[in-house]
Amino acid sequence: MNWKASAKAKNRVLARVSPTPKEAGEEKKFALQLAVILQKMGGVKVSFVGSAARDTGLKGDNDIDLFVQFPASMEKEDIVEKTFSYTRKNIKANWIVRYAEHPYLQARMDSFKVEVIPCFIVEPHAGIKSAVDRSPLHMDYLQKRLSPQQRGDVRVLKQLLKNNGLYGAELAIRGFSGLVCEYLILNYRSFEGLVENASKWKPPVRIDVSGGSIKHFPEPFVIIDAIDRNRNAGAVVSDTNLNRFISLCQAFSKSPSEKFFFSTPKKQGKRETESAWRKRKTQLALVEFEAPDVVEDILIPQLKKTEENAARQVWLAGFPVFSSASFVSGKKAFLLFELPFASRPALKKLVGPPAWNEKAVEGFLKGKKPLRGPFVEGDRIVVDLRDENESIFGLLEGLKKKPVVWGVASHFLAPIRKARILKNEKIFSSSCVKELAEYFFKKEPWL
Amino acid sequence: MNWKASAKAKNRVLARVSPTPKEAGEEKKFALQLAVILQKMGGVKVSFVGSAARDTGLKGDNDIDLFVQFPASMEKEDIVEKTFSYTRKNIKANWIVRYAEHPYLQARMDSFKVEVIPCFIVEPHAGIKSAVDRSPLHMDYLQKRLSPQQRGDVRVLKQLLKNNGLYGAELAIRGFSGLVCEYLILNYRSFEGLVENASKWKPPVRIDVSGGSIKHFPEPFVIIDAIDRNRNAGAVVSDTNLNRFISLCQAFSKSPSEKFFFSTPKKQGKRETESAWRKRKTQLALVEFEAPDVVEDILIPQLKKTEENAARQVWLAGFPVFSSASFVSGKKAFLLFELPFASRPALKKLVGPPAWNEKAVEGFLKGKKPLRGPFVEGDRIVVDLRDENESIFGLLEGLKKKPVVWGVASHFLAPIRKARILKNEKIFSSSCVKELAEYFFKKEPWL
Repeated sequence: MNWKASAKAKNRVLARVSPTPKEAGEEKKFALQLAVILQKMGGVKVSFVGSAARDTGLKGDNDIDLFVQFPASMEKEDIVEKTFSYTRKNIKANWIVRYAEHPYLQARMDSFKVEVIPCFIVEPHAGIKSAVDRSPLHMDYLQKRLSPQQRGDVRVLKQLLKNNGLYGAELAIRGFSGLVCEYLILNYRSFEGLVENASKWKPPVRIDVSGGSIKHFPEPFVIIDAIDRNRNAGAVVSDTNLNRFISLCQAFSKSPSEKFFFSTPKKQGKRETESAWRKRKTQLALVEFEAPDVVEDILIPQLKKTEENAARQVWLAGFPVFSSASFVSGKKAFLLFELPFASRPALKKLVGPPAWNEKAVEGFLKGKKPLRGPFVEGDRIVVDLRDENESIFGLLEGLKKKPVVWGVASHFLAPIRKARILKNEKIFSSSCVKELAEYFFKKEPWL
Repeated sequence: MNWKASAKAKNRVLARVSPTPKEAGEEKKFALQLAVILQKMGGVKVSFVGSAARDTGLKGDNDIDLFVQFPASMEKEDIVEKTFSYTRKNIKANWIVRYAEHPYLQARMDSFKVEVIPCFIVEPHAGIKSAVDRSPLHMDYLQKRLSPQQRGDVRVLKQLLKNNGLYGAELAIRGFSGLVCEYLILNYRSFEGLVENASKWKPPVRIDVSGGSIKHFPEPFVIIDAIDRNRNAGAVVSDTNLNRFISLCQAFSKSPSEKFFFSTPKKQGKRETESAWRKRKTQLALVEFEAPDVVEDILIPQLKKTEENAARQVWLAGFPVFSSASFVSGKKAFLLFELPFASRPALKKLVGPPAWNEKAVEGFLKGKKPLRGPFVEGDRIVVDLRDENESIFGLLEGLKKKPVVWGVASHFLAPIRKARILKNEKIFSSSCVKELAEYFFKKEPWL
């Protein structure tokens, strides 16, 4: 790799994605003021934690995460109750309660998104009481080890990932978390060290920053958590995204440049997308329905499961599916099926019991009105029957009528009964044109 | 089974299918005259053999088979030469030479088809020098054992099989030979005994008339040859035809009647056949070409092999085949393909090498013009490509142009290059309307 070209690109990227010193200063100042107030609760240790605290955040990420740490001997209910009442009383804001593994408070204050999270004080590798207990330990570990140069490289890496749809551990993305980015830079010393190494990865990939891990993890991408060696910090990264990252690093290594960080993809409108479809000469069915009001990490897996189960039903009904997809756009959820043919064959060959089995043959033929047969083939009785010449669009009405049979996930059972089914060119009038464009113009930008 | 009803039907059948005593007498007299002449060759034993000789033949089967038996110590060339020259000199007829495992003479004399076959004298189970050596032994064995009643039952059985397409060991039929019929009646004592037993058969079926066989045979239908226990006289019977026979016997057992012996199937003409096809809503492609001038036992297997190989190629090209068939009609051979769709999908998803394998990905993408992609799926590089939107009719031109690649059998390689390919309703103008009617109205008459 040309390190000089990379450094040049990096500097330009850094200038664009780093918060200004003024911004960063104001954020820290504000966070520390809040921490001082919370500290007065007594018997606690308050930590300002996360990328803003570590100078590894991107411009515009104005998250202030404050962890209120209690002794591990206390009860979860007590620390939640104590934190909530104290915070509400002493910091005036429009606090709302949110739930991860346990409840925390969130509020928008000025331009900042502030979270106050109660947790327990734990030791590294010592077992945790709640998933959030790790965050202050991560802060300690990384704050001590990341050089100012490396903090910049973390920002550069995040921008590269973000621009290519690889940044974020949420299930809609299944990409690289901020923590994983920091571990990767720490492990390979620099952005260039990471890129050069990653371009030679062959999955499965296992990285143990602090060493000492022997536990086996089944995922293709394993980043041993430096403060909890029994946890894979890279578990959520999908096989596809790991391979996309390797492929991206190969391309960057070949000719490092700023374009990998800020692509301006051609905006594909309704007309271009419809025209891309016409070249494929396929049949489209789009199922559109209300997205239920649940958090994304439940919505997305349930939608994916619904899509996969429905696609299997379509296959079993005799319609080969070229490809299926699902997405959420605004308040709507969508299932897309692309097929080579809209109709299935009108004829079905039914192979019955062995011809020598008189009783079974009698039962098999009872009430059947064969279009041809019965006749014997090998040792079996065979008939040709008329199949309902159903179209894929008619078939999908069954998804609305019998969602349980079709394997629709729990939160979608009610809304799918009122789904609209759109055919072919009609789908381009739906509210998911952006997602359709992504489907029909799907391409790795670096390939 | 109602034996009385069966006996009644049998008597009526016998009256219709037995040669008159006059016919039988004349045939035997004529045969014996010829045998006397051949006997004068010296050093030989002449046998009048076959169903006519045993009174088990159907009316109109005027075959006279004369076996000229020589000591096993002689050479095959010598016995052929001696038989041919003596016969030609002493029996004036328009003799032609035919070839089975070895040559023999055939001539039409008055209303009889006479065959003079040189062979060797062998002992039962002692190994033969040529396949024809067995015939005189069969004659000896059966002549001694079949009662007059049973000879009638053999005729009845043959008529039942003939009427249902199950009679004859030729490869176009793969049914029951005359010898098998005689062994079956001998084994089960009577026609009714056979039918009652056969209606309870569950393949594989093994019958050892004279006992003492231990050899394993792989076929579903095993009739140990009473004069050669290392031979399966039922080897040619197909799995389908064995099961058809069992099913037929079940139906006959239920209500014995003359209708099983003389059906008058509704004659299905061009119009009815075409209309039966239209109800199926399928696509038809018929390949028509000159049938090469070879014996049926070579023609039929080669045609079947050609059909199967071509159908596989059609599948591999992305066209599901509902059913295929092949037949010979007059001087033409035909391959029929029935498909649910005439076109294959316009789009093809091509899965390439692992995304992390930079060299392989580069090679894979070189020169490709994807309709969508490249993108990563799992660990693979994937592209959507335009597939030639070829029709099945266009595809079959390849069968004419590259018959070797398509797996066309040797004797068809030349004529298939000049084949005609007919589409859908056009196929009903071909010369194989009878065979098409059999295909579209295929049905076991007794079911």
